[in-house]
Amino acid sequence: MKISILGATGYTGEELLRILASHPEAQIQHLTSENQTGSSLHQVYPHLSQFYHDKLISIKEVDKIAANSDVVFACLPHGHAMDIGTRITGGGAKLIDLGADYRFSDPVVYEKWYRLPHVHHQSGAVYGLTELKREQVRNAKIVANPGCYTTASILALTPLLKADLVDTKTLVVDAKSGVSGAGRKTELMYHFCEVFESVQAYGIAGHRHTPEIEQELSETAGMPVIINFTPHLIPMPRGILSTCYASLKPEVTPEKVDEAFKSMYEGEYFIRLLGRGGYPVTKHTRGSNFCDIGWHIDPRTHRVIVVSAIDNLVKGAAGQAVQNMNVMFGIDEKMGLMQAPLYP
Amino acid sequence: MKISILGATGYTGEELLRILASHPEAQIQHLTSENQTGSSLHQVYPHLSQFYHDKLISIKEVDKIAANSDVVFACLPHGHAMDIGTRITGGGAKLIDLGADYRFSDPVVYEKWYRLPHVHHQSGAVYGLTELKREQVRNAKIVANPGCYTTASILALTPLLKADLVDTKTLVVDAKSGVSGAGRKTELMYHFCEVFESVQAYGIAGHRHTPEIEQELSETAGMPVIINFTPHLIPMPRGILSTCYASLKPEVTPEKVDEAFKSMYEGEYFIRLLGRGGYPVTKHTRGSNFCDIGWHIDPRTHRVIVVSAIDNLVKGAAGQAVQNMNVMFGIDEKMGLMQAPLYP
Amino acid sequence: MKISILGATGYTGEELLRILASHPEAQIQHLTSENQTGSSLHQVYPHLSQFYHDKLISIKEVDKIAANSDVVFACLPHGHAMDIGTRITGGGAKLIDLGADYRFSDPVVYEKWYRLPHVHHQSGAVYGLTELKREQVRNAKIVANPGCYTTASILALTPLLKADLVDTKTLVVDAKSGVSGAGRKTELMYHFCEVFESVQAYGIAGHRHTPEIEQELSETAGMPVIINFTPHLIPMPRGILSTCYASLKPEVTPEKVDEAFKSMYEGEYFIRLLGRGGYPVTKHTRGSNFCDIGWHIDPRTHRVIVVSAIDNLVKGAAGQAVQNMNVMFGIDEKMGLMQAPLYP
Amino acid sequence: MKISILGATGYTGEELLRILASHPEAQIQHLTSENQTGSSLHQVYPHLSQFYHDKLISIKEVDKIAANSDVVFACLPHGHAMDIGTRITGGGAKLIDLGADYRFSDPVVYEKWYRLPHVHHQSGAVYGLTELKREQVRNAKIVANPGCYTTASILALTPLLKADLVDTKTLVVDAKSGVSGAGRKTELMYHFCEVFESVQAYGIAGHRHTPEIEQELSETAGMPVIINFTPHLIPMPRGILSTCYASLKPEVTPEKVDEAFKSMYEGEYFIRLLGRGGYPVTKHTRGSNFCDIGWHIDPRTHRVIVVSAIDNLVKGAAGQAVQNMNVMFGIDEKMGLMQAPLYP
Repeated sequence: MKISILGATGYTGEELLRILASHPEAQIQHLTSENQTGSSLHQVYPHLSQFYHDKLISIKEVDKIAANSDVVFACLPHGHAMDIGTRITGGGAKLIDLGADYRFSDPVVYEKWYRLPHVHHQSGAVYGLTELKREQVRNAKIVANPGCYTTASILALTPLLKADLVDTKTLVVDAKSGVSGAGRKTELMYHFCEVFESVQAYGIAGHRHTPEIEQELSETAGMPVIINFTPHLIPMPRGILSTCYASLKPEVTPEKVDEAFKSMYEGEYFIRLLGRGGYPVTKHTRGSNFCDIGWHIDPRTHRVIVVSAIDNLVKGAAGQAVQNMNVMFGIDEKMGLMQAPLYP
Repeated sequence: MKISILGATGYTGEELLRILASHPEAQIQHLTSENQTGSSLHQVYPHLSQFYHDKLISIKEVDKIAANSDVVFACLPHGHAMDIGTRITGGGAKLIDLGADYRFSDPVVYEKWYRLPHVHHQSGAVYGLTELKREQVRNAKIVANPGCYTTASILALTPLLKADLVDTKTLVVDAKSGVSGAGRKTELMYHFCEVFESVQAYGIAGHRHTPEIEQELSETAGMPVIINFTPHLIPMPRGILSTCYASLKPEVTPEKVDEAFKSMYEGEYFIRLLGRGGYPVTKHTRGSNFCDIGWHIDPRTHRVIVVSAIDNLVKGAAGQAVQNMNVMFGIDEKMGLMQAPLYP
Repeated sequence: MKISILGATGYTGEELLRILASHPEAQIQHLTSENQTGSSLHQVYPHLSQFYHDKLISIKEVDKIAANSDVVFACLPHGHAMDIGTRITGGGAKLIDLGADYRFSDPVVYEKWYRLPHVHHQSGAVYGLTELKREQVRNAKIVANPGCYTTASILALTPLLKADLVDTKTLVVDAKSGVSGAGRKTELMYHFCEVFESVQAYGIAGHRHTPEIEQELSETAGMPVIINFTPHLIPMPRGILSTCYASLKPEVTPEKVDEAFKSMYEGEYFIRLLGRGGYPVTKHTRGSNFCDIGWHIDPRTHRVIVVSAIDNLVKGAAGQAVQNMNVMFGIDEKMGLMQAPLYP
Repeated sequence: MKISILGATGYTGEELLRILASHPEAQIQHLTSENQTGSSLHQVYPHLSQFYHDKLISIKEVDKIAANSDVVFACLPHGHAMDIGTRITGGGAKLIDLGADYRFSDPVVYEKWYRLPHVHHQSGAVYGLTELKREQVRNAKIVANPGCYTTASILALTPLLKADLVDTKTLVVDAKSGVSGAGRKTELMYHFCEVFESVQAYGIAGHRHTPEIEQELSETAGMPVIINFTPHLIPMPRGILSTCYASLKPEVTPEKVDEAFKSMYEGEYFIRLLGRGGYPVTKHTRGSNFCDIGWHIDPRTHRVIVVSAIDNLVKGAAGQAVQNMNVMFGIDEKMGLMQAPLYP
């Protein structure tokens, strides 16, 4: 497979390169970077020096890139991928967008939350949460790779909604993320001394992953679902833990909850169910494509609490993108993704 | 003031010693440690070597300790302070217990959650969340110093309950704590390599701070309040962030919420209100007795989200204990607690 | 004492404010910041909000600042303090410069290492390593506050040179610093994700603290001393550990080494000698003005290894600056500096 | 290849399992653990749950283990591997010992530094620093896998000694290690809160990796080499940085130094030379088998400073062990070791 990456020098692009370095079918064609055009990749990321010697080109060469590639990964700030989507698919390549541009079935939602006119309606893009949309992904020309928070949260909550076990008006998602989720921006907020030994919430009632989670949960529930989503910044580079709260409907037993998770994720290699009472640990997923899920039921409040853990750069971004690529090209979904987590 | 500390070599005891080193009225009388009896304190904590040269004695000398002290701080595993409460107060000293033994007005609750018979009923102990119980603390012989999670959570939620703004059936508290909250135990779970770059929940639907929060909220609400409380372990030594969710009653406006916080905490030196839209940061409280509080209202779900931050060893333990001591002895409540936070 | 700070919003300025908040004689007059002129300090540093409400002004008002102040601290990038030195002292204030401008008795050395013409020769500035230059500091109008690495390294090595115990051609200083030593610059190198779980050397054979260490060691030795100095970046905000190697002269016994340290530092409150075989720990000094020193002798190589630990922002910057201020104004040298280290 | 691991539940054993999970020729036969006998591996390490389902057995079954295995890795505290060395090789398996028992050609050195009688003289063991001893490793029945500090230090210094460029009496090695080097022991010194935001030296003039470094450097130099070696504990789990100092012989030019490194390591895949002026970063090697090396020459002191970086658990332990296994079995040395470093 001939692969190009637009925006290769951010953390998401770099993580794609890390994963693809071990993917037996991957062959890198072009890498772009607007800040570092003309440099070699290993000058930007010396740790990859035995793996890649590619020169970084500009995204202005997108037509050449599309023509030379079977698949193009876009790791761009929102607003840029939709500008070039038709040039990529028109050039014969498939597009996997790790940004937000193609995630919303309704452009109005995108425009409201991202404050940009959407310029590529009716793209036919598929929302690539692989475990939920595998068949659609298989035939897609454009895959919208889900956000990191959304992957963890949707995987945690979908079984409950699918089995109709919870009151959809009671959903609260309290999520904790490592700093790499914010990218490689040199802002004061991400300075080592500012982040260290500190935790804080941000984006309460306004984070852009909210409508993305709601879209997918609503589709599963068959009715509009509105949630509270609160992200937190945790002093670590990698990892997301999503703690999800919902009131169980009357008469729902713990066994029904167990059954909902098991029936939905049976046979899913990358979903590891820790069972009722299980506690996912972000470090257990570090560097891997796993999503670990445990759930708890509080008889005092009749609430269910689901906890999920992922590596935000892998299952929350580059790993799921490769998983989607594998599905799109009909090869083993796990190819290149079988590395064990890096522990400790 | 002649002061003794039972269990001086845990992190809570050590933090008391750090604070008291700058307290102009404090004079240390006795320090106990069962593991290190006979050692000098600075052998256990070399960083305190210019401050203390006391020998550690055994708690078996409790009667002597009581007789020689105006106030005794107990930093003991639960179950131990209630055994000696009457010997301390009978000996003429006041007791500030940083453990759980005296926190519950109903011994049945204690016995249910701590699985121990309570041996000191009718102790007259006052729950020492200073801002809420200042007058009772003033005259108490025994003060039950609140837990760390509970301090952060109660301070965040009480204004809403006091002003009757929220549906008490909808309370969810999602809290994040640094590792020092677990003490200085050498268990695998707290090994540096295990904690580093990792976050996890624990004690879901069963953590012992739950009934403590509920007791105080119920008292304020004038009705039983049952909550969901989920603690998380964050890879940092100090700091608690408590993110609290509640559904607003119909017709409650944002301005009413603002007013509830302002009217309750006006003039409270250690409560710093960041206002509606404010984001507390645990590092902003590091080493200090402050509790920073911000709140947010989501018009889409009509929920209020309150976030509070403290240093778990200070306002969540030793600092509030000293604050209580100051109140009990009629001196300036802020004495010894005026150090600015250590940042960065 | 009326105090102003030039460059109050960097980590060094902020640390001065933290310390001065507990200094009974300190009264802040003016704070400057060129990036944040017009803001209030607590907008830049919310954690100081109960302590300061000062507006930040521009350094352009230096004459007013000098006229209104007894002492001015300069926390400026090198090259700026020497521009205004005469205006400050001419205005009647004493100047404590936490930058490099006044550290070199020979302007040629400054110009060679800092690549800037020196514009304030014959300033009469005193090198303010308090323990070594207390008497000169007492009468100085300008004090050059030493660098962080230099403080740790000079305090570790001076006893050996003073007692003429080592071959001065064999000195190697391998130092490890927390990230706050680089200031609050938002450069990629200091991004949380880049620093985390990583260590590296930098500035080998070229770091600007080298000539500063050499100047002071040469003065003590009575002969030119040239060293190797290697700084390292450690994934923590605060703390410097300096590991110093030297070949002992023939016949020098361990006891002579012990005696050199004890005789030099006896009675020095801020120097804590851990003795032969002692291991300083940076965390034991966190937030305090202590310098902990231990030394070791390897009989196999006849080398002495001295290890010293400080908090780079306190004894390595703001703490020593306050110590110097106290000496200059004839008050207790320890005033405002008696806080116990923050541990853990 | 049929593989067994003695002591599979320490960090070194676990790292072997991580690497072998991606090794196409590896087939696990037996795993031992004395503390966890009877448990399944994934109960001890849940993050490996999709990879291994083996039950942990006791080392008492060593004869069965040897009979069933082509190669046995020993990850045991020192003193245990030499007890069973002949039973393993007698049983037909090759032995790769990740402990210290077989590292010393002279048992007297072992007995002096480890204070244990050596019970397996004349074992024919080869010191497995692969790049230096590849041919001997190829035919070895027992390979003594080098220590972590020693790998980093020997790789940094050997080119200089081989080319006779430095005065062997002047060698100083100042090394910095992550905490995983100390294993998974639950000692207070490795408690999260104690390690965090702290750095310290330990084992000065007495660390057991000293004679191991000296043995190999002496062999290269053709004369006894005595060094100073100082290890430091850094607040991170993985990574070693070794900063090495030596006085150049008179007339040695920078170009000769460059030539020594290049000629020695040309074609070595796992050695990445950053050149003169290069700065290795431990994070650039995280999770990989690389050793990055840079060197600097100080014309003022005529010293060379060599800096090397490795992941202590990979090139410093399990990775090099697999590299040795590959060599011993005549397969591609890089097999299973081609994963890109995990960054950030």
